Amino acid sequence: MTTSELSKKNILIVGGGFAGIGCAKKLANCAASITLIDRHNYHLFQPLLYQVATAVLSPADIASPIRHIFYKQENVRVGMGELSGVDLEKRIAHFDNVDVKYDYLVLAAGARDEYFGKDEWAQLAPAMKTIDDALDIRRRVLMAYEAAEWEADESARRAKLTFVVVGGGPTGVEMAGALKEIAAKTIPKDFSNIDTTTARVILVEGGGRLLAAMPEKASEQAMRDLEKMGVEVRLNSFVTDISPGMISIGNEKLAVENIIWAAGVRACKFTETLGVELDRAGRVVVNPDLSIPGHPEVFVVGDLAHAFDEKSGRPVPGVAPAAIQMGEYVAELLGREIESGAAEAERKPFRYHDKGSMATIGRNRAVAAIKGRTFSGFPAWLFWGIVHLIPLVGFRRRLSVMFSWAWSYFSFTKNARLITGNIKMKVKRLRRD
Amino acid sequence: MTTSELSKKNILIVGGGFAGIGCAKKLANCAASITLIDRHNYHLFQPLLYQVATAVLSPADIASPIRHIFYKQENVRVGMGELSGVDLEKRIAHFDNVDVKYDYLVLAAGARDEYFGKDEWAQLAPAMKTIDDALDIRRRVLMAYEAAEWEADESARRAKLTFVVVGGGPTGVEMAGALKEIAAKTIPKDFSNIDTTTARVILVEGGGRLLAAMPEKASEQAMRDLEKMGVEVRLNSFVTDISPGMISIGNEKLAVENIIWAAGVRACKFTETLGVELDRAGRVVVNPDLSIPGHPEVFVVGDLAHAFDEKSGRPVPGVAPAAIQMGEYVAELLGREIESGAAEAERKPFRYHDKGSMATIGRNRAVAAIKGRTFSGFPAWLFWGIVHLIPLVGFRRRLSVMFSWAWSYFSFTKNARLITGNIKMKVKRLRRD
Repeated sequence: MTTSELSKKNILIVGGGFAGIGCAKKLANCAASITLIDRHNYHLFQPLLYQVATAVLSPADIASPIRHIFYKQENVRVGMGELSGVDLEKRIAHFDNVDVKYDYLVLAAGARDEYFGKDEWAQLAPAMKTIDDALDIRRRVLMAYEAAEWEADESARRAKLTFVVVGGGPTGVEMAGALKEIAAKTIPKDFSNIDTTTARVILVEGGGRLLAAMPEKASEQAMRDLEKMGVEVRLNSFVTDISPGMISIGNEKLAVENIIWAAGVRACKFTETLGVELDRAGRVVVNPDLSIPGHPEVFVVGDLAHAFDEKSGRPVPGVAPAAIQMGEYVAELLGREIESGAAEAERKPFRYHDKGSMATIGRNRAVAAIKGRTFSGFPAWLFWGIVHLIPLVGFRRRLSVMFSWAWSYFSFTKNARLITGNIKMKVKRLRRD
Repeated sequence: MTTSELSKKNILIVGGGFAGIGCAKKLANCAASITLIDRHNYHLFQPLLYQVATAVLSPADIASPIRHIFYKQENVRVGMGELSGVDLEKRIAHFDNVDVKYDYLVLAAGARDEYFGKDEWAQLAPAMKTIDDALDIRRRVLMAYEAAEWEADESARRAKLTFVVVGGGPTGVEMAGALKEIAAKTIPKDFSNIDTTTARVILVEGGGRLLAAMPEKASEQAMRDLEKMGVEVRLNSFVTDISPGMISIGNEKLAVENIIWAAGVRACKFTETLGVELDRAGRVVVNPDLSIPGHPEVFVVGDLAHAFDEKSGRPVPGVAPAAIQMGEYVAELLGREIESGAAEAERKPFRYHDKGSMATIGRNRAVAAIKGRTFSGFPAWLFWGIVHLIPLVGFRRRLSVMFSWAWSYFSFTKNARLITGNIKMKVKRLRRD
């Protein structure tokens, strides 16, 4: 190491999601030594994760090795590890396998799923945060039909052919639509004993409307679209209990074998060790410059941050564009300070640029709200596709996803219908032949 | 059910590999009721499985849902289940989840890996039979580099950067070549602490030459090609012990963290319950018509069968074309007997048509032996690609694999470099920064 390298500032970025990657990329020309550590070796394009769970895309279509993203950017080192805590005074981050010293720390470790104190539900109602989660859900969904095909007991068969999605945000809406499409369009011809078109998909939302972050018009359209497809939407409904083969929605008990959780997120656990103010979801309440109180060298970005937009005063939503903007904002700030060699007297606060929001519901159906205008149907659906195709990492992935979409659109099939991993078929009473 | 359906013969096919699928497809016009049951819901194109393990292809590229293969063929029902035994007298096959009566039984359940009495090695030296196996190996290979990047202890790092492939058949040769390519071409730029081009790949073969089923000229060429790429080939060498972090080859002990088993196959366990003669690998010694002694209604095909070619008198090799031919042979025989309503007085014996054999070694390198002629290098490599592309199930898969190959050829990258599933990084002494 040369002296100039020794004197370089160490920037540690924890998390390779949209915020972490956005930050590290924006620091490409910064004369700093950057370390980026994530639990996984891949950056995941989370908005399309439900398409892995519903067998449209393969994991490699939406995930890129983080090392490969940065192999040309020489000031970035990449590692794998899980953050357990931070020593803010000594400026050391503790991972499960390594301790890393930093001059600047950017926490971008994202969120995990929130079961509101009912962690025991996680096994029965899996959520979808990682590739492995999505493959687990794919396995469960496909196995439900396989088991139903053998099941001779009528009520047990109905339970296997019932799918409940908890949470009416974008993930829940997209998942419910896709599950209904599989049942009604993709697989009916594949089964002989069961009529998959009779499968029930129930979407449960605690609030008064779906897609609460979007304009009311979009919520209503999404609801109409889902109901037209045959999804049963229950608004103002809460899950009160989940046990094997059973869900309670309010006072109603329902026999159901397939529950998917999309009801809420919570910041990663280590935020509790920071000794700073957290909101109810465990997110760090940050300063206007996204740093934490008393530590101008520590920033929190992405889903981990409870931040406010400087202009509107409203909380910054937990969406990909917001995460990227936060990451890039911190990168620009650090770039300036490292170049000038001194902390800025007054840091310009973070400002969120809302580029709109959207959700896809099914074939030719989507809703989008952009700059106060709401639109839906085929135009919104096409727009959704383009908007989600462009930011995928790498030309190869864009091509591959485009091809998979085109194929599944025109052929009504889903290519990745593989049951991998170990799962045993549980059948109450066997159809004997 | 109508009377004509009730009087239909029931053909039960166990296994959805090349033999089972080949048999069921060939029975498309047979007035029988066919049931095909496999442990998995997918048909796997096994010759390309090593490319999933080496991150070139995604599982969905080489596996198709069996239901989807037959959704238009109305005389086939598809199910999932694992065969535990057969009651030959009562003509009932017992699965883990169902019992199925049959008039004709076609056993095509294939082979599993053989550790020659050392089943405890399976954990330390995984083999590659299913998609899950391949994903496990992919995870281990990619994690080895991640762990080496953090490892401060020189000898422990060397062990992580050493890969031993046991078995010099086509799978072992292809795997060794692909592992060396990853180390030397795909990932060197991705790592900063380690030089991946120094990774050792050792191929261990018990016999006197690689690819023993091919002509000697091909074996020699494969050996030259591998050594030119930097693979260390050890002929006449036997693995005598495997323990965590250690392998013994003959009397030599080697510190190694990555061992891949490609040394032998053994028939699925249930053959032992049939009460018929088995060979040393547990395969059923079949009659010239592939039926089992005393039971003309029970056939064994594919890797499960110890069969002889009627013409040459030589054993039929355990390769995909042989499996397909056996499956189709039985289908034609059954078709004739079911149509005529009576067993044939003298069944024409099975005859194997050897269409040649081949193995790919690396970029632009392969060996092929077709009708007595051996060729190698780029022509053989291109030919290997075409021959493996055509039989993939479905136009979509062919396109996708072709695209992945072209991409990885021209870009020197491997797209599917994702570490999925749970694995902990084990590092002896941490590199501290």
